[in-house]
Amino acid sequence: MTATSRNECAALDAADPLSGLRTEFVLPEGVIYLDGNSLGALPRRTLDRVHRLIEHEWGQRLIRSWNEAGWWDLPTVLGDRLAPLLGASPGEVVVCDSTSVNIFKTLAAALRMRPGRRAVVAESGSFPTDLYITEGLAGTLDGVERRLVADARELPGVLDDEVAVVLLNHVDYRTGRLQDMAAVTDLVHRHGALVIWDLCHSAGALPVELNACGVDFAVGCGYKYLNAGPGSPAFVFCAARHIGSVRQPLSGWWGHAEPFAFEPGYAPDPGIRRFLTGSQPVVGGAALAASLEVWERVDMAALRTKSLALTDLFMRRAEELGLETLTPREPERRGSQVALRVRDGDPGDGYAIVQALIDRGVIGDFRAPDVMRFGFTPLYLRYVDVWDATEALADILRTGAWRDGKYAVRNAVT
Amino acid sequence: MTATSRNECAALDAADPLSGLRTEFVLPEGVIYLDGNSLGALPRRTLDRVHRLIEHEWGQRLIRSWNEAGWWDLPTVLGDRLAPLLGASPGEVVVCDSTSVNIFKTLAAALRMRPGRRAVVAESGSFPTDLYITEGLAGTLDGVERRLVADARELPGVLDDEVAVVLLNHVDYRTGRLQDMAAVTDLVHRHGALVIWDLCHSAGALPVELNACGVDFAVGCGYKYLNAGPGSPAFVFCAARHIGSVRQPLSGWWGHAEPFAFEPGYAPDPGIRRFLTGSQPVVGGAALAASLEVWERVDMAALRTKSLALTDLFMRRAEELGLETLTPREPERRGSQVALRVRDGDPGDGYAIVQALIDRGVIGDFRAPDVMRFGFTPLYLRYVDVWDATEALADILRTGAWRDGKYAVRNAVT
Repeated sequence: MTATSRNECAALDAADPLSGLRTEFVLPEGVIYLDGNSLGALPRRTLDRVHRLIEHEWGQRLIRSWNEAGWWDLPTVLGDRLAPLLGASPGEVVVCDSTSVNIFKTLAAALRMRPGRRAVVAESGSFPTDLYITEGLAGTLDGVERRLVADARELPGVLDDEVAVVLLNHVDYRTGRLQDMAAVTDLVHRHGALVIWDLCHSAGALPVELNACGVDFAVGCGYKYLNAGPGSPAFVFCAARHIGSVRQPLSGWWGHAEPFAFEPGYAPDPGIRRFLTGSQPVVGGAALAASLEVWERVDMAALRTKSLALTDLFMRRAEELGLETLTPREPERRGSQVALRVRDGDPGDGYAIVQALIDRGVIGDFRAPDVMRFGFTPLYLRYVDVWDATEALADILRTGAWRDGKYAVRNAVT
Repeated sequence: MTATSRNECAALDAADPLSGLRTEFVLPEGVIYLDGNSLGALPRRTLDRVHRLIEHEWGQRLIRSWNEAGWWDLPTVLGDRLAPLLGASPGEVVVCDSTSVNIFKTLAAALRMRPGRRAVVAESGSFPTDLYITEGLAGTLDGVERRLVADARELPGVLDDEVAVVLLNHVDYRTGRLQDMAAVTDLVHRHGALVIWDLCHSAGALPVELNACGVDFAVGCGYKYLNAGPGSPAFVFCAARHIGSVRQPLSGWWGHAEPFAFEPGYAPDPGIRRFLTGSQPVVGGAALAASLEVWERVDMAALRTKSLALTDLFMRRAEELGLETLTPREPERRGSQVALRVRDGDPGDGYAIVQALIDRGVIGDFRAPDVMRFGFTPLYLRYVDVWDATEALADILRTGAWRDGKYAVRNAVT
C-alpha cells in the first residue's frame, strides 16, 4: 500500500482530496517543510487579513474597532470556530494567552474543584513547560504535591483519592506517540480526578474528540498545525458542564461579567470568557482568523488518512536506511510526526544530520538529546515531498555529508 | 501663557520641537484623536515592519527565523529598548504577556520575597484589573490578606509588618492624577514592603524614573501611549538588585535557563527572562519594535512640557464651558489625560456628550459612572487640535445636540 517510487507518490498526489489546499499556503521555493509541527506555514490569506486589520481597523477606525470590528469578541469568536477541530461545542473554547499560562489557569481551576485533594499528576516525558508550570504551581500553592509518571500507562500506580487533576500530552512532542484520550480520561475519572489534555501536537494534526471522550479541560497553541503564526494566541477548552462553577486564579478584567462597569469586585463572565485575563493580542488573533478560514474546507477524516499515509511512507523509507524509528507504527498510536534516531550513534549525530538536511532544503528539527523530528502537515505536503525528503536523507547518509564539521555546531533551534 | 485663540495655538505648533513626529503616524482625515490613552495611533512604519515579518520572516524563512530574525530574543531586546522610557537599565525590562498576567507574576514574586508577611495592598480606585488580580491571587494562595486603600494617601494607615507588597497606579486611569512615585515608594520601603507600579497610563505619557525612585517592580502595556497596537504585549520591570533571587509562579519554558535542553526540572534564566512564561507574540512584538523606533527620536522633557501645555489648554477651555475638571491642575500631579464631568448632571450625560463629540470626529471616551476622558499624545496632537476639540465641545453644549436620543444608547467602549 505504501508507495515504492516517486511515480507512485505522484499518482497518490493526483488522487489526493486535499491537494487543492496546498495553494492556500506560501511555500518557499526549494524547501520541503517538515517542521509544521513547530511553526506552521503561512496561509496566503493571512497577509491580507493582517494588512487590513492594521491599515483600516487600527489605522483608520482606531478605538472604534473594539466594537465595530469585533476585536473584543475575538477570543470567543475564534474559540467557536476552533471548536469543531477539537470535538468541542460552541461556548467551550476561548482563544487567549499562551499554552503555559493556560495550563496554570486550568490546573488551579481543577484543584479548586476537588477541595479535599492536593496532588497534581504530570508526565515526566511531557513537553517541559507542562512540568515547569506544575512545578511553579506546587511551589506557590500550599500543600500541593506533584506526582510524575513516565506516561499515562503508569497512571494506575499513582491515582488515589488525593489526586485532583492529571495533565497529559495528547501527542508526545518528541516521539509523536498518540495517547488513547477516551481510555485515559475514563481511567482518571474513575479515580475521581479531573483531566487536562495538552493538544499542542494534536490540534489540527488529527481529529480530536474532546466531548466524545468526556474531557474536562484542554489547552493548546495556534502556531503549529493550525498555522496561525509565531507566538499566535493559544486556547483553553472547558467542558460545558464545568463552566458555570469553575474559577481560575488569573481573574483579570477581560474575564469579568461586566468589564466596562469598572466595578471594584470580580464577578466572572457566565461563560468561557472567564478564562480570559488581560487584553488579548488582536493582530495575532486576526492571523488565526485567517488560518481558520482555510480549516473550514478541511475534511478531518481525509486529513487523518493522508497524515498516516505520509508518516508511514517516511518511516518505512527511514527504516530502509537503517535509522531507528521512535514513533509507533500502529496508526492509532501515532500523531502526525515522526521521530528518528541514529542506531548506536553519538547524541550529536542526529543534530548534524538535521542540519545537513536543512542545507538541502529539507527542514526538520532536532530535540535533545538525540531525536530527529519531522512533522507532516497534510494541508500543504505532497507524497512526492516525502519521497524527495527521504532521497535527500539517503544521500546524506550514503555520502557521509553530515559528518562535515560545519554541521556539528549546536545552535538553539525551536 | 495658555493660548486664547486658534491663531495662538497655530503659533505654538509652529514652535513645537516635537512637530516633526506627527508625520510618523497615520491619522484619519477629519478626526481629532483624544483616545491615545486607550489605543495609540498607528505609526506609519508599523505596517511595513509587520508585512516584512509575515511575508519574509514567517513565509519564506519559516522556523529558521526564531534564530535568524531574533524572534527568540525579542522579549529582552524590546525590553532594553523600552528601558530608557521608564528610567530603567538594560536587563531590567522584558516585554511579555498582558499587564494583568504580569501583575499576578510580580505580586506572587513579591510575596515570596517577604516570607513572614501575607498582606497585599491595592487601591480601590485603581484600574479594576489590578483589583481583580489581587482578588484572584488572594483566593488562590493560602492566608493572603488583601487590604484596600482609596489611594496612596491612605497608605500610612495600613502599612504594618504584615504587608508584603503594595500595588499602585502611577496615573489614575480615570482622573489622570499622577502619584509621587519617589515619595510613595520610599514610604512603602520604610515599612519593609515592596512596591509594584502599574505604568499603563504613564509609560510613554511622561518621563518615568523607576530606578531613581528605587522601585522594585513595575508593569504596563504597549497599546496606549506607546502606540504598539491593539492587544500589544505588555512589560515587566524588575530592579536589578532583585532579579537574581526572584521567583515567579508562571514558570514556563521561555523563562528557563536552558529552554532547549528540554530538562524536566525548572531552572530560571539568570536574568529578566525568568519573568517569561510561554511563547510570546512575535507579530505584536514586531509592531512594538516599529513604534519604539519612533520613540528613539523623542526628547522626554519636551514631551512632558507639551503634554502639560495641551492638557492645561483643554482644562481651561472646559472650565470656561462650565464643566467640572476631575484632573489635578498642579502639573506635578497630572498625567497626560483629562477627566471632565457634567456639573450636577445625570450619570448618562457624560456618555451622551462623548458620543456627540465622536460624531463630530473628536474621539474621547467615557468611563463609568460619569467620567468623560480625553488623552493627549504629544507625538501626534497639535495645539490647534485641542483648540478645535474644545470648539466642538462648546458647540455641542451650546446647542444641546448631545440631548439627541441617539446618543443615549450605551455600548461597550474600551
